[in-house]
Amino acid sequence: MLLRVDKFSSTPIYKQIVSQLKGLIDQGVIEVNKPLPPTRKLAQQIGVNRSTVDRAYDELQALGYLNSRPGSYHIVQRRKREAAYHPERKSKILWRSAANQESETLFETFVKHSYDISVISGTDKNSMIDLSEHQVGPELFPIRDFKRCLNAVLVNHGSEALDFCSAKGNERLREYIAQRMRLHGISTSKEEILITNGSQEALSMIVQLLARSDKKIVIEVPTYFNFLPILKFLKSEFIPVPMTEEGMDLEYLERVLNKEKVSFIYTIPNFHNPTGITTSHQHREQLLNIALKKEVAILEDGFEEEMKYYGKVPLPIKSIDEYNIVIYVGTFTKTLFPGVRIGWINADKECINRLTAIKQCTDLRCGNFTQTALWYFCKEGYYDLHIKKMHRVFRKKMDLAIRTMDEYFPKGVRWSRPAGGYNIWVKMPKKLMAEQLYTYMAQFGVIVTPGCYFFPNCAESEYFRISLARTSEQEIKEGFARLGKALQMLSKKI
Amino acid sequence: MLLRVDKFSSTPIYKQIVSQLKGLIDQGVIEVNKPLPPTRKLAQQIGVNRSTVDRAYDELQALGYLNSRPGSYHIVQRRKREAAYHPERKSKILWRSAANQESETLFETFVKHSYDISVISGTDKNSMIDLSEHQVGPELFPIRDFKRCLNAVLVNHGSEALDFCSAKGNERLREYIAQRMRLHGISTSKEEILITNGSQEALSMIVQLLARSDKKIVIEVPTYFNFLPILKFLKSEFIPVPMTEEGMDLEYLERVLNKEKVSFIYTIPNFHNPTGITTSHQHREQLLNIALKKEVAILEDGFEEEMKYYGKVPLPIKSIDEYNIVIYVGTFTKTLFPGVRIGWINADKECINRLTAIKQCTDLRCGNFTQTALWYFCKEGYYDLHIKKMHRVFRKKMDLAIRTMDEYFPKGVRWSRPAGGYNIWVKMPKKLMAEQLYTYMAQFGVIVTPGCYFFPNCAESEYFRISLARTSEQEIKEGFARLGKALQMLSKKI
Repeated sequence: MLLRVDKFSSTPIYKQIVSQLKGLIDQGVIEVNKPLPPTRKLAQQIGVNRSTVDRAYDELQALGYLNSRPGSYHIVQRRKREAAYHPERKSKILWRSAANQESETLFETFVKHSYDISVISGTDKNSMIDLSEHQVGPELFPIRDFKRCLNAVLVNHGSEALDFCSAKGNERLREYIAQRMRLHGISTSKEEILITNGSQEALSMIVQLLARSDKKIVIEVPTYFNFLPILKFLKSEFIPVPMTEEGMDLEYLERVLNKEKVSFIYTIPNFHNPTGITTSHQHREQLLNIALKKEVAILEDGFEEEMKYYGKVPLPIKSIDEYNIVIYVGTFTKTLFPGVRIGWINADKECINRLTAIKQCTDLRCGNFTQTALWYFCKEGYYDLHIKKMHRVFRKKMDLAIRTMDEYFPKGVRWSRPAGGYNIWVKMPKKLMAEQLYTYMAQFGVIVTPGCYFFPNCAESEYFRISLARTSEQEIKEGFARLGKALQMLSKKI
Repeated sequence: MLLRVDKFSSTPIYKQIVSQLKGLIDQGVIEVNKPLPPTRKLAQQIGVNRSTVDRAYDELQALGYLNSRPGSYHIVQRRKREAAYHPERKSKILWRSAANQESETLFETFVKHSYDISVISGTDKNSMIDLSEHQVGPELFPIRDFKRCLNAVLVNHGSEALDFCSAKGNERLREYIAQRMRLHGISTSKEEILITNGSQEALSMIVQLLARSDKKIVIEVPTYFNFLPILKFLKSEFIPVPMTEEGMDLEYLERVLNKEKVSFIYTIPNFHNPTGITTSHQHREQLLNIALKKEVAILEDGFEEEMKYYGKVPLPIKSIDEYNIVIYVGTFTKTLFPGVRIGWINADKECINRLTAIKQCTDLRCGNFTQTALWYFCKEGYYDLHIKKMHRVFRKKMDLAIRTMDEYFPKGVRWSRPAGGYNIWVKMPKKLMAEQLYTYMAQFGVIVTPGCYFFPNCAESEYFRISLARTSEQEIKEGFARLGKALQMLSKKI
């Protein structure tokens, strides 16, 4: 048997042995049912350590090339066959009609909202500047610091991190989050924290807990578009309350609460998605008092709480909530990196205990490993450092975006001036359907998010959302200039 | 200012500087609104690198000790105050009545099932041998290999791993899982894989897709106890079909399908939880044909597919499913380590697309970072190596457990002889309620899982489940001897 190892290769030696032996077996040079040479002998022959050959044989066994019966570990066997894939096979079940109505409606909604830009516009996607992505991009990921933390966690807390945690989530992380909430003025403890798979699971579980056939849910309109499918899917009736420039229309809300039975009010007080509006302390107090009077819960979505880079944003509604009626939702996904899906709910203990039962039923608990890594990252101060950096970067980007809009956007177009976050909400002089908007903007080489997505059952809208989350300064300059041109043409057309 | 650094300490120097400066500020020695010394000067003074002082100042700023306005970064400021926690605050909302009925029932179920052993038995929990835990323990976690993979992933695929993936899950991991499914004889591709947060989310989403008011769900009885709350919570009507020693009673099933409209049949063909029964190839074929005739889907729970350490287990039902009516659920949590909650659904593409919409609505997608790490771990062959080790370890444990039972368990007690997995199902000569069983067994120093948990609405049962997942050989010897004594006393009492 002729094996050759290259000690200077970047491929580990045992891997070289594995790949050569695999080749020889696959080609039939080494016969099935015959043993490989003893590890000691082969090691001598090719001049490597015996343990290296051991490791190679182990891997060959794992890959199915060697027998696994004790006493005959070195006997070559025919590899397990992989089944062939038959893409032509059709299911005897028509899933469209097997699914219940809510699932099918949900499915159609998501299909309807997922446009393939290149198909609808006939343009090359690569030449376009994407101002629609709401997730921070790789150039801002603190990869090195995170790696350092992962190693420290596995060395010092390995057994704990790879083990399971309670349904509420990793205790240390809950402790850290509770402290962070207290720094945002909220009176709370870790017993009032439930860890979730990002804020989407948090929102979905809260609707599952509180949706009732005899009560309705109040939402701001426009609102976070991924909240709408939850309501549809769980068949929860809702009442839209319009947004003013100061936030949810509170007079309108009071009239609604006087007339209807409401289970909770969903609100996004900071850098509202999509409008970018941040409510004042006074607005928060009024909203809380209105809800308190009717004993209606408030769902406060604090998804970008940490992105207060202009330094003029009031504390969360929950910080003035002395009667524990506010359910607060937070997340790391938007400020840290999207590859970690960890969010949390902060609410009255009785509420958290009930949500924990839903968590157990839905997916038992969140992965402890990611939670432990995140806890370590936070407690070592890396999260704070990262947030500081995010503030510097996005303050600069938002300044640039606003300046560029002032310069290029024509009269008749209006836009929000956010106090932080990533979003800008633009009002065009004309209503467009989602597909129309995509096609039109594609001609100018930009992608934005159609406004109608943020309204329930809305076919066309004069709004669109821009997100700065995944843009470079160059893309902002060029992208906003292109948008300016598109809007100028649109104004002329009317 | 007097700072002292110890260059031989295991605490990094910048951390030493941070902690001493924090102390001085907190004690008022360094005054608020005054600047810290320039980094160059301080570095010279204590004889360290300037970048070390820079890092310390950065951290102090992140911790809120320094001003964050540009141009005044070194000015000491009063730290942000943490809100106090007021545990006495009572919510104005009575969550028990605010929640809908299904949530409240779910909550009560989980509360009812969570006994604190030490409270009910008055015994010291530490002296007891726990034979109820169904999650593999830390001594088997491949920490070192996993660490190696995490580092490789962050070095080579960092930006990708920390970014988001599609709602279906990480493409490479889906590719790997599809291949693994093909090795288990299943004809499939990555487009038919959806990644979930463990198998619990998979099960819960499938019920959400297929539960309908005009159809019922068939379950084996007894069955996996965490499937029952899903049915209750989603108000899905179900029909229990009894287990025989060969698996689900197929004649009974046929009668049910002739009489009732059924959406799907839930079955656990390998090492059935809790009975430990593994069905034969013939049983699998018959079950498939019965379902096919009525065009009813099968939900095949392959949660311990990889734990076939006696080597005599047939291929999955899905491997003979030419008409794509089987929805297969798998997981890494049970064989790898519980701190990673990654499972998957393998089904017809049309079914997967619909489930993906539910995934998006529930929690958008799974964390990409864990998925990438897992993919790397698998493709490097570490998962296979780990499985081989698990086989060796648990074959030995199960052999020992069976031998010990043969020796110590009295006549009149019966138990299953599993073909793999972790579970043994024991039939006592007497029915007991859950609390009675716990209290009785605690006197002998063992904890097992009450059988009634695995039956819907069952108050007492003559069964209990033993799990070997988190036991040492010593614990098996001693624990089963104690169980033997307990069962002997119980037999005499009758």
